[in-house]
Amino acid sequence: MSKAWAGNFFEDFHLGQRLRHATPRTATEGERALYLALTGSRFALASSDEFARASGLPRAPLDDLLVFHLAFGRTVPDLSLNAVANLGYAELVFGQPVYPGDTLATESEVIGLKQASAGDSGIVWVRSRATNQRGEAVLSWVRWVLLRKRDKAALAPDTVVPALTARVAPQSLSLPAGLSFDRYDLALAGSPHRWGDYAVGETIDHRDGMTLEEAEHQLATRLYQNTARVHFDQVLQQESRFGRRLVYGGHVISLARALSFNGLGNAQRILAINAGTHANPCFAGDTLYAWSEVLETVPLAGRSDAGLLRLRTLALKDRPASSFPGGDPRPGPDGKRDPAVLLDLDYWVALPA
Amino acid sequence: MSKAWAGNFFEDFHLGQRLRHATPRTATEGERALYLALTGSRFALASSDEFARASGLPRAPLDDLLVFHLAFGRTVPDLSLNAVANLGYAELVFGQPVYPGDTLATESEVIGLKQASAGDSGIVWVRSRATNQRGEAVLSWVRWVLLRKRDKAALAPDTVVPALTARVAPQSLSLPAGLSFDRYDLALAGSPHRWGDYAVGETIDHRDGMTLEEAEHQLATRLYQNTARVHFDQVLQQESRFGRRLVYGGHVISLARALSFNGLGNAQRILAINAGTHANPCFAGDTLYAWSEVLETVPLAGRSDAGLLRLRTLALKDRPASSFPGGDPRPGPDGKRDPAVLLDLDYWVALPA
Amino acid sequence: MSKAWAGNFFEDFHLGQRLRHATPRTATEGERALYLALTGSRFALASSDEFARASGLPRAPLDDLLVFHLAFGRTVPDLSLNAVANLGYAELVFGQPVYPGDTLATESEVIGLKQASAGDSGIVWVRSRATNQRGEAVLSWVRWVLLRKRDKAALAPDTVVPALTARVAPQSLSLPAGLSFDRYDLALAGSPHRWGDYAVGETIDHRDGMTLEEAEHQLATRLYQNTARVHFDQVLQQESRFGRRLVYGGHVISLARALSFNGLGNAQRILAINAGTHANPCFAGDTLYAWSEVLETVPLAGRSDAGLLRLRTLALKDRPASSFPGGDPRPGPDGKRDPAVLLDLDYWVALPA
Repeated sequence: MSKAWAGNFFEDFHLGQRLRHATPRTATEGERALYLALTGSRFALASSDEFARASGLPRAPLDDLLVFHLAFGRTVPDLSLNAVANLGYAELVFGQPVYPGDTLATESEVIGLKQASAGDSGIVWVRSRATNQRGEAVLSWVRWVLLRKRDKAALAPDTVVPALTARVAPQSLSLPAGLSFDRYDLALAGSPHRWGDYAVGETIDHRDGMTLEEAEHQLATRLYQNTARVHFDQVLQQESRFGRRLVYGGHVISLARALSFNGLGNAQRILAINAGTHANPCFAGDTLYAWSEVLETVPLAGRSDAGLLRLRTLALKDRPASSFPGGDPRPGPDGKRDPAVLLDLDYWVALPA
Repeated sequence: MSKAWAGNFFEDFHLGQRLRHATPRTATEGERALYLALTGSRFALASSDEFARASGLPRAPLDDLLVFHLAFGRTVPDLSLNAVANLGYAELVFGQPVYPGDTLATESEVIGLKQASAGDSGIVWVRSRATNQRGEAVLSWVRWVLLRKRDKAALAPDTVVPALTARVAPQSLSLPAGLSFDRYDLALAGSPHRWGDYAVGETIDHRDGMTLEEAEHQLATRLYQNTARVHFDQVLQQESRFGRRLVYGGHVISLARALSFNGLGNAQRILAINAGTHANPCFAGDTLYAWSEVLETVPLAGRSDAGLLRLRTLALKDRPASSFPGGDPRPGPDGKRDPAVLLDLDYWVALPA
Repeated sequence: MSKAWAGNFFEDFHLGQRLRHATPRTATEGERALYLALTGSRFALASSDEFARASGLPRAPLDDLLVFHLAFGRTVPDLSLNAVANLGYAELVFGQPVYPGDTLATESEVIGLKQASAGDSGIVWVRSRATNQRGEAVLSWVRWVLLRKRDKAALAPDTVVPALTARVAPQSLSLPAGLSFDRYDLALAGSPHRWGDYAVGETIDHRDGMTLEEAEHQLATRLYQNTARVHFDQVLQQESRFGRRLVYGGHVISLARALSFNGLGNAQRILAINAGTHANPCFAGDTLYAWSEVLETVPLAGRSDAGLLRLRTLALKDRPASSFPGGDPRPGPDGKRDPAVLLDLDYWVALPA
């Protein structure tokens, strides 16, 4: 029997199963520089040690999404090598900031199982937790994946579908210890718009576009040690329905977030991701644009220096938002999503009040 | 009104206006590694902490041009998003070396304005200064840009054209505090040619060639958080007269400098840039070559260990200098520049004497 | 005479000649991050400071092959700019681990010379040694190269062909001081297979594939400050028999090693490379697969926590091993190598016992 790992299949999972994912990772200033080079992100808190210190942190934390990708990358060999589809994620909450030199490890627990009616696959729900070298939570999230079965005759498990919230309760969210916007410098941050300047229903076309290259998404995905073959193996993908390597969906999220700086430049910290849909596949050569809508504005409990926005950000392919009717890329009355929409992300961010 | 920033237009500037540019940036060993990977530069002082210590510095400083690109990148959102053309720069002088961990911030002052006769655009001159976290100057330079007007009817400002020197006075230049070439190791540096070995009028074909990829110039330009859309957005550029993404001119400067190692390997420090012309646009797929001419040789005031060369370096596209008549890519008697010339850079470097 | 370096030719070498190669290099966390992004390597020891500390090291060492590429890169300007062919290497032994912040320098000694019968070229053998800033050996190896002569009439040197071992004696190998697998965590390492689980003759198809882009191999090769023009200059290569830029053979080794994680995840340290053949050229667009065979299993003298495997790893192009008859890409009875084989590498690794 070969020692090469072919990934877990649906019948390899059972409720309550715990997985310690391999390859802990020390994230450094090298990861930070590469993340900036791959995304062009400009949020001041993650760009400048001095800005971070003026905000009460010991130095610039790594970008929240870089932390997510590193944590997520650990889980791929165990969870999604045999994925037919990555169906969704929810209840993603950031904890302690991650600083250069911190080491991340990720564990997961199976919290739901449901065999598909055809009997050849099934959905696995897992809750994953990434911790730093002190065991502090830096990120937790739920993800569900449709996995092939190795043996169609394997018995179906009892169906357990976990109850998940569609929206992380803003009352449960807080800024990292020490972080304060009391001495916030709007000019250095690059945007004059404070939390109170945003209104529910407001929409923002982030204007800038970014054309993606194969080398770029491959560098990003390898940086995260994400091993899903669809991103790297053109010979394999030639036989797929796309005939192309697929861009890791997380890279699309990062580019949309980086583009969103233009209009949301003070959204220094992502606190939680409520939901995300990869509506269409993304390929090298695509040009990405981003557009956001303010879904909620919520004060941050017990603080006057910061407030929360619940945002919906769409990533668009080869068409800026301005090319949609009314400049609005949301689905029309018929509910149909335009094929140019790659990503529909629902998340909470903190801004200075 | 959208919160997304569309850039300043000509009429948004007034004489004496000061701009504090956004997104201060901590530059680290990550930036250094990426810069080496993007350019292949081999100058020993910026490559080796030990070589730098033997030269009196605490450790290897970041490459001078990396510092320039990071400092310049801060200014783009305020100054050149609506540029019709980047017309030139002058009086660029390097100050304190930048070390990993230093944080750069950039400010600019408007020092000249001139509306174009057509009334739809105008030239803005700014002097920009980048400082480290201790407020020490690391770089200052003047740049002028032709900007569109938002409103053609906006009143023209008084015309003020600043007096700029065509050549930074060598007497005003000095090596960073502590830097000494007294114990200089020519073998480790990779070149046997000291300052005194170069003569005015001498020319050097740097021989090596470098073919550029889209992913490479995009990574470099994003690393500098330079947001000019022409470098990134293929959908936008499709409609331009080039139909292509443009390579950031600074990347061409960096590649020319890296190629110039072969023949100028002891030119460890750029002290000033007198002038630079981007003679033709550069695109992915172009192969760059470099060629230099010694314009002046000047002793460094009060020192016996180092001297200054004023150099002119040309970057060439798809043709090595050896393919030009006489191996000389300078304009002929008619003054016409060959379309293969991308860059014509005039600058001061320090070498061991 | 131009100051640009055109490389040494065969007649520039003499027996016993010593070369101090230029451009010492400080390797940092930036190099580590880039190496991960370029290769996707997942070996825990080089990925996590915490895993390394639990293994008795002060922190995660740089990947062994990253050290090799950096050390090798120093030698290129002196040794192989005028190479007709890189014929082989042998007796490559790793010494002290390299940690972020260490500075590498490389020296070589000519140990063999043999002019080709046609008189226009000759083979030069050199033994190279890379040391850190404390003068400790981090790597030594022998390499031989077929070099052009500048002047065909130059006298032939006496022929000296050094005696080289085909296999580094395992008794001569040891783990770095402090490194211990006594507290080894198989789950974090990502493979359940200890040293004793491997048997001579066992073969492993590493399954995963990686498609290479021009930007990727150029970034890697520049990161190593390797200046061989064949990797970078498309205008030059257009006239070559391939018409393409060649991928640096070391990048193929690194990708094969990274792919080999899947089946050899506990092979944390390469101790020596016995031999390596670049059987066919590699180009951008190629998809790489890897396959390994266990040649020997040897206990590590005086230790119960670790053992040695001698491995042969093949890198394959555009065809996974499973597409070969019997899934075995080794030469058939006729000894002919399949044109899909890029690399045939023979080396020693250490695993927990």
